[in-house]
Amino acid sequence: MDLSDLARRPTEWLRGTGQLSDVVISSRVRLARNLAGMPFLGKCNGEQQAEIEHRLRECIMRAGIADETHYVNIAECEDIDRSLLVERHLISRQHARADHPRGVAFSPAETLAIMVNEEDHLRLQVLRSGLELDQAVEETIQADNRLEESLSFAFHRKYGYLTACPTNVGTGLRISVMLHLPALKMTNEIEKVFRAAHDMRLAIRGLYGEGTEATGDFFQISNQTTLGKAEDQIIREFCVDTLPHIIEYERRAREVLLSKRAIAIDDRVQRSMAVLRAAKLISSDETMYLLSLIRMGITLGRCSELDLATVNELFLMTQPAHLQKMLGRELEPLERAEARATYIRQRIDAASE
Amino acid sequence: MDLSDLARRPTEWLRGTGQLSDVVISSRVRLARNLAGMPFLGKCNGEQQAEIEHRLRECIMRAGIADETHYVNIAECEDIDRSLLVERHLISRQHARADHPRGVAFSPAETLAIMVNEEDHLRLQVLRSGLELDQAVEETIQADNRLEESLSFAFHRKYGYLTACPTNVGTGLRISVMLHLPALKMTNEIEKVFRAAHDMRLAIRGLYGEGTEATGDFFQISNQTTLGKAEDQIIREFCVDTLPHIIEYERRAREVLLSKRAIAIDDRVQRSMAVLRAAKLISSDETMYLLSLIRMGITLGRCSELDLATVNELFLMTQPAHLQKMLGRELEPLERAEARATYIRQRIDAASE
Repeated sequence: MDLSDLARRPTEWLRGTGQLSDVVISSRVRLARNLAGMPFLGKCNGEQQAEIEHRLRECIMRAGIADETHYVNIAECEDIDRSLLVERHLISRQHARADHPRGVAFSPAETLAIMVNEEDHLRLQVLRSGLELDQAVEETIQADNRLEESLSFAFHRKYGYLTACPTNVGTGLRISVMLHLPALKMTNEIEKVFRAAHDMRLAIRGLYGEGTEATGDFFQISNQTTLGKAEDQIIREFCVDTLPHIIEYERRAREVLLSKRAIAIDDRVQRSMAVLRAAKLISSDETMYLLSLIRMGITLGRCSELDLATVNELFLMTQPAHLQKMLGRELEPLERAEARATYIRQRIDAASE
Repeated sequence: MDLSDLARRPTEWLRGTGQLSDVVISSRVRLARNLAGMPFLGKCNGEQQAEIEHRLRECIMRAGIADETHYVNIAECEDIDRSLLVERHLISRQHARADHPRGVAFSPAETLAIMVNEEDHLRLQVLRSGLELDQAVEETIQADNRLEESLSFAFHRKYGYLTACPTNVGTGLRISVMLHLPALKMTNEIEKVFRAAHDMRLAIRGLYGEGTEATGDFFQISNQTTLGKAEDQIIREFCVDTLPHIIEYERRAREVLLSKRAIAIDDRVQRSMAVLRAAKLISSDETMYLLSLIRMGITLGRCSELDLATVNELFLMTQPAHLQKMLGRELEPLERAEARATYIRQRIDAASE
């Protein structure tokens, strides 16, 4: 498939709907699996890596896990296409950077994606807009069952599914949510959330997963324990015992800000809109930061010029690879900053018409 | 006089005209004098301080150095009025803070001001818009001559005029200019100017003189040597040997920016305008910073929405004391930030009509 088509449309899980979408951007479930009888990727020689890639690709395409599955050979991709897939959260940064045979399969709506030869032979993810972990888990299990009809995964009676990194052994299941916590950040309470999450053995990461900084008040929270627990226990602990508290905490912080410092919110939201409209040069980090404040303004009813879907679309489309694919050429950083500012201005003007 | 009247009008030396007003905001000449036969202020007892204040006040008011001289008894002023006089550069911060008998006399246009009992018994200053040091020196000498008709100043045949601090001994003359150097700041060349000024025995200070930080790219440059040189030598060295180079250096930096990075200039200017229009809360430091960029935009022909006079007026009127005097009441910091944002918005709207 031509990845330029991807660059022109927003992705399903960023449509800004779903439960609790004022705080929860998206839900993600990820499953790690390895083929039985094959070494883990780090222990494979090149021939074995190629064999795994070939076998899994065939199998995934035949399994019919989506109406029409796309497969992209990452090793043969241009750099910009790899970056595009990272920006759409279809592959990880590690997967983009590696240099062995590897690929990714995904459904047309991009809610289901399977990385082949990332850290494990197979990494399956389901992404959904808002808080929809139950549905995401269900879809994950269905896809896993389909694959198991023709594949045999490394499994140990006592430990469960075996994975390249011991932290994934057991269910191989990781669930995470992308949260937008601007009010906790503004009121300096975010550190408390970090400490509480740490105590509950949850990991907090930035927008693009492991090793990335949190930009624009977006935080990815996920379970760290996969061993010794059943899937439903992991989900229950995460969705019932933990997540509602964080969401409630952010919502309360927003209410307090709104009742006591409405003018401070209006100030930040109006300044952000003004700068996005006026800038002639803008970086993606600053764009993210300003859109984050506008997003908060929208959920608090203090910004009527844009809607969540447009803001989410801007988050995605202003990333470097998307911008360059959209314009059909590679750009130097300064040219990108200019093209980004122009695109944002046009998009906001179109939205306010 | 009621100082509230002052708060409602801009001051003559900020009218944004005069020679080289693209770079030189204002010119200032200051003369330090002490009464013969009286100890320096720090060595006086309270009675002597009161006597000096009384004597100088009488003399200044009788001397007719301006059409109509105002005299303000600083010791009896409210804090906000003292701050107002500081913001208008009619008195120094030290003079506002002291607690002995003291005052200030000034002409209706505020271009001539005489502090009584600041560091020296008498500190006379002439302020003018743009680069007008020659005229300012002339006016200073005229006023000094008028005062000497009825006052005898401490003078030593070898050293010249005697002053409380040895750095002022000799002519007691200090000349300074307030420069706007945004391009040298943007291109990181300002440090070179600092080093060169230091080598030439010039002092660089912030907007409100000694001990204040440079805000919004405004720098006050003055001579440090007053001893062993005649007035005209000090002026020649400053105006011919030094100042033209700094001004030329800033102008060249602006040209280079404009030819090579016009979009970066437009970006900063447009963002600044947008934020000033959109902010609901704004500090005086941020206001200064944004107005500084807009001022640069105007002198480069990249901002047609405001003129220099309006920008200069905003510099003055958005200071805390001016704002509060204008609104007729004292405000908490947060209220001030809100009132400032509202005032700026209204003033810009009025100017763009």
